[in-house]
Amino acid sequence: MTSTVAFLGPAGTFTEAALVAFEKAGAVSDVQQLPVNSPSEAFQAVREGRADFACVAIENSVDGAVTTTFDAFTEGDALQVYQEVDLEVAFAIMVKKGLSLDDVHTIATHPVAYQQVRGWLTENIPDAKFQPASSNGAAAEAVSRGEVDAAAAPERAAEIFGLDVLANSVADVKGATTRFVLVGKPGRPTERTGNDRTSVVFTVPHEPGSLASILQEFSYRNVDMLRIESRPTRKKFGTYNFFIDLAGHIEDEPLSEALRALWLRTENLRFIGSWPAADQSGPKLDTTEFDKATAWVEKVREGR
Amino acid sequence: MTSTVAFLGPAGTFTEAALVAFEKAGAVSDVQQLPVNSPSEAFQAVREGRADFACVAIENSVDGAVTTTFDAFTEGDALQVYQEVDLEVAFAIMVKKGLSLDDVHTIATHPVAYQQVRGWLTENIPDAKFQPASSNGAAAEAVSRGEVDAAAAPERAAEIFGLDVLANSVADVKGATTRFVLVGKPGRPTERTGNDRTSVVFTVPHEPGSLASILQEFSYRNVDMLRIESRPTRKKFGTYNFFIDLAGHIEDEPLSEALRALWLRTENLRFIGSWPAADQSGPKLDTTEFDKATAWVEKVREGR
Repeated sequence: MTSTVAFLGPAGTFTEAALVAFEKAGAVSDVQQLPVNSPSEAFQAVREGRADFACVAIENSVDGAVTTTFDAFTEGDALQVYQEVDLEVAFAIMVKKGLSLDDVHTIATHPVAYQQVRGWLTENIPDAKFQPASSNGAAAEAVSRGEVDAAAAPERAAEIFGLDVLANSVADVKGATTRFVLVGKPGRPTERTGNDRTSVVFTVPHEPGSLASILQEFSYRNVDMLRIESRPTRKKFGTYNFFIDLAGHIEDEPLSEALRALWLRTENLRFIGSWPAADQSGPKLDTTEFDKATAWVEKVREGR
Repeated sequence: MTSTVAFLGPAGTFTEAALVAFEKAGAVSDVQQLPVNSPSEAFQAVREGRADFACVAIENSVDGAVTTTFDAFTEGDALQVYQEVDLEVAFAIMVKKGLSLDDVHTIATHPVAYQQVRGWLTENIPDAKFQPASSNGAAAEAVSRGEVDAAAAPERAAEIFGLDVLANSVADVKGATTRFVLVGKPGRPTERTGNDRTSVVFTVPHEPGSLASILQEFSYRNVDMLRIESRPTRKKFGTYNFFIDLAGHIEDEPLSEALRALWLRTENLRFIGSWPAADQSGPKLDTTEFDKATAWVEKVREGR
């Protein structure tokens, strides 16, 4: 079955590489690519039915949360994560055919990527001026159009845009990893594997200790909280949406009990998904009918 | 006494406006401005003694934490926050003298600012191409040099760079606010006012429930946790520095007791400061000797 997948384009971005990885793993098949300009646009395409899935970066081991992705989860109808993939992120420095590092006076890349190659640039082309781009693929494209001398982008972008690679595996922090997720409309979660991740988002009543006492619902039941991310609600300065990742699947008894307690104690609770953790090969995405999870899951998903 | 203050330059940025506000409030006097390119460089200037203070943005009501500032707190010796100021953030759209909106094909601003004016731009100049800049002041400067047609920047930047303002008070979310802090080397905290904010950063042992049980140290004692921010340690994917803001001063008994408990239960605890909350006029910064806080405060400040 053909799946249309929205992703941060153009071709040659790391997000496209993640999409290829999802296809290889069988999470989606016969992919029609729909390049867009931001995670928000990718989610909008899914919400409006123009795409079946969105493939977006969610976290980087150096730069942290991709905040535009987190915000996109709460700016419209509920969406759900079905799979994740971790990619090691290293950059190629690319130029128009025939040029050398001495010819590089300007270099373009995504601002997040810039944070990851700045040390290398300072050491090797200290006088080159940084020009921010909306994506690494767009940076490579700008080189091909002669708008900038060089780009830091995935090596594949050099092939796509016919550029020369002057340096490879450039990364100030070796082993820097970015996590990507495959996001669709709410449906049956990917099957429990025993090594899963569950994510929810909620707001809390503004009272001393409310967040701490809510988090106890996990520690009581020995459910490991893997991360917590706060994002402004944009309604009142100092109020936040809390995104929490938990170890386990919504069909694991202690976790589902803790979420039931959260449903009673938090505001605007949304289920973001249960899916296999990236450090094992995930099973093929199953799109058959939701048959095991209980009715309250639906309530959690819709929030209150 | 002259104070050298490092800030995100050039002149005409919101950070410069915050610095002027700090000077007006008496937090610093006889300021020598040291414009730099990032919060990290501003902190480095303080650590190396080239500046007495750094003035940096830390949080925005629309875009959330200024992550580069949070990361800069842990990338070198401990630094301390002494004051904060909240500025309402609205933008002026500025061009070279004599031009009109019809002449605008490219518009530059800082990527965070772009998120806050995108709606207005789409409505008023839908075909103008966004060009990211390292600061709003730099965007205005680029207009004056003819490198770009328009900039979204604080109105003051138009005066500084001799530009025409075509629209004012532009902000997709009305009342958007940015919080700025004044940061120096560790010293005696600003005096207790009864409406203070205290901030710490730490890592936690990797065990289920460790963060939740640590946060109980606050709820036990009825200390309100105002926010929590997680940033990657950059050592291992999935390990975080947790930044926590608390209501109260380190000289408030319940808060200081909770921090003492944290010192025993967390790793790499650092005291980031106690200072007056922005919704009251803060007292003048006192730089006399530390006389009241107890010796363990020093230990907390240095981490373990």
